[in-house]
Amino acid sequence: MPITEKFNLETYLQDKSASIDRALHLLLPKETETPQKLHEAMRYMVFSGGKRIRPVLTLAITEMCGGSLEQAKIAACAIELIHTYSLIHDDLPSLDNDSMRRGRATCHIRYGEATAILTGDALLTLAFEILGKLKSPKHLRLIGEIAKAAGTIGMIGGQVLDIEAKDKKITLEALNEINLKKTGELIKVSCLAGAVLSDARQEEEERILRFGQYLGFAFQIVDDIMDSDGYLHHMSGKEARQKAQELISQAKREISGFSGSKTALESLADYVIERKK
Amino acid sequence: MPITEKFNLETYLQDKSASIDRALHLLLPKETETPQKLHEAMRYMVFSGGKRIRPVLTLAITEMCGGSLEQAKIAACAIELIHTYSLIHDDLPSLDNDSMRRGRATCHIRYGEATAILTGDALLTLAFEILGKLKSPKHLRLIGEIAKAAGTIGMIGGQVLDIEAKDKKITLEALNEINLKKTGELIKVSCLAGAVLSDARQEEEERILRFGQYLGFAFQIVDDIMDSDGYLHHMSGKEARQKAQELISQAKREISGFSGSKTALESLADYVIERKK
Repeated sequence: MPITEKFNLETYLQDKSASIDRALHLLLPKETETPQKLHEAMRYMVFSGGKRIRPVLTLAITEMCGGSLEQAKIAACAIELIHTYSLIHDDLPSLDNDSMRRGRATCHIRYGEATAILTGDALLTLAFEILGKLKSPKHLRLIGEIAKAAGTIGMIGGQVLDIEAKDKKITLEALNEINLKKTGELIKVSCLAGAVLSDARQEEEERILRFGQYLGFAFQIVDDIMDSDGYLHHMSGKEARQKAQELISQAKREISGFSGSKTALESLADYVIERKK
Repeated sequence: MPITEKFNLETYLQDKSASIDRALHLLLPKETETPQKLHEAMRYMVFSGGKRIRPVLTLAITEMCGGSLEQAKIAACAIELIHTYSLIHDDLPSLDNDSMRRGRATCHIRYGEATAILTGDALLTLAFEILGKLKSPKHLRLIGEIAKAAGTIGMIGGQVLDIEAKDKKITLEALNEINLKKTGELIKVSCLAGAVLSDARQEEEERILRFGQYLGFAFQIVDDIMDSDGYLHHMSGKEARQKAQELISQAKREISGFSGSKTALESLADYVIERKK
C-alpha cells in the first residue's frame, strides 16, 4: 500500500506564506538603511499578518501549470506589495480614515500621514523594481497586465467608484463593478501571473483568468456576509452563501481540465467560502 | 556653400515637447471613460505647462546614440508621469501643503485630497503599464532602474530626507544628498534610458550617467539661485553660479567623445544655467 499523505490546506498555506515572507524579507530594503523610518514603515505594513491569498494563488497556479516557482515568487511578492500599498492609501484620513487594521494601528496613525503616503508610494514603486528582475520578453507583458489591474480601470478605479458610492444606495450591478475592479482585478492578475510564468497556452490562460474572477467574486461575497455589508443589502444571507457556493463550483470547473495537480487550488477555493474572519 | 541651418534650442524644445505631449495624449486614459474625474485630474496635472526636461533628455540622448525614438518615447513618457505623480504627492497638505503650482491650483485644491492621492497613484501605475509596452529583455533592466531611481534610495528617499531637514540648518553634504536623491536620480535615469534603449556600451552608459548627474546638480543650484534657497545658505550667488558653470563644463566633457550629434545636449546643458523661471 503506497504511503500517500492527505493534502492539508493549513500546512500548505503556512508553507507558501512562509516562503513568500522569506522572499519579501530579502526584497524589502533593510530598516538599518536610510531613510530608516520609511523602511521600517514598509516592513510594519508588509508583515502585519496578511493571509497572502494573492501570492499563494500565483504559486498554486504555477505549480498546477508546471512553471518555475522562483520566477513566480518574484511576481507573487510584487503583487502582495501592490496589495499592501493599496491598504495604506485606502486607510488615509481623506479616504476611509481607518485607525486600525488587523488589530494594529494603521500606517498613518503609527508613522504620520506624510510617511504613510510615501510608504504606499514606495511599496508600489518597489513592486515594479522587483518585476524588473524577471528575465524574458513575455514578462514585459505581465508587467503591463499587473499595472493595468492595479490602475484606473482596475483597483484604483474601483476605489474611486467606492468613494463615490459611499452612503448612497447603489444597484447590484454597480456593486459588482466596484468589487470586480477594487479587489477582483488584482486577484485575477495574481492567477494570470502563474499562467504567464508557466507559458500556459492562451486557452489555459483564459480559464485561469475566469477561475480568478469567480474566486475573487466569491471572496467578496463572503466578506460581505461576515461584515453584513454590500451584497447583504441586495439579498439574504442564505442567498448570498448560495451564490458564493455556485461561484466556487464554477471556478473549480474552469480548472478541471488541467493535468497538473489541482488539489491546492480546489482546497483554496473551498477555503474562500469556509473561512472565518 | 552648403545651406546649414543653425541649431535653435527653442525650436528643438518645442518640437520635442510637442512630440512627447502627443504621445502622452494617446497613452493617458480618456476623460470620457470611467472614472472620469480621476482621468480628468491626471490630464489636468500632466498638461500643466511642465518643461518636459526629463523626457527631452531621454530623446536627445537617444538621438546622440542612434537609438529608436519610438521606443525612447515610451520610456520618456513613463518618466514624465513619474515626475508628475511626485509633484502631486509632494504638494499634499501633509507634505509641502502647496496650493499653487505653475500658476494653477494644485491637484488636491482642485479635486480634493482623496482624488489627488489616487491621481498620483494612478500616474505612477500607468508609468509602469506603459513601460510594459517595451519589447526586449534588456528593457526589464531599464524598468528596474527607473523604479530604483523613483524609490526609497532615489526620489522618495530624497523627499523623506527633505521633510526631515525642514526648518533645520543642514550641512552642504546633507543638502547634496537630498538633491541628488530627490531630483538627481530621476534626471540621471532619464539619460540612462536613452543609453539603454540605444544599446550603448557600458563605458558610454557610465559617461551618460555622469552627464546626467552633473546636469541635475547644476539644475538644482540654478533653481536655488532663482529661489534664494538651498545652496545660497552655503555660498554666495557668485560662487553658486560658478559652481553650476563648472558642472555644466564637466557634463559636456563627458559626452565630448560620442560620434553622434551632441549639439542638442550641449545646448540643453547651457540652457540649464541660462534659463529664467
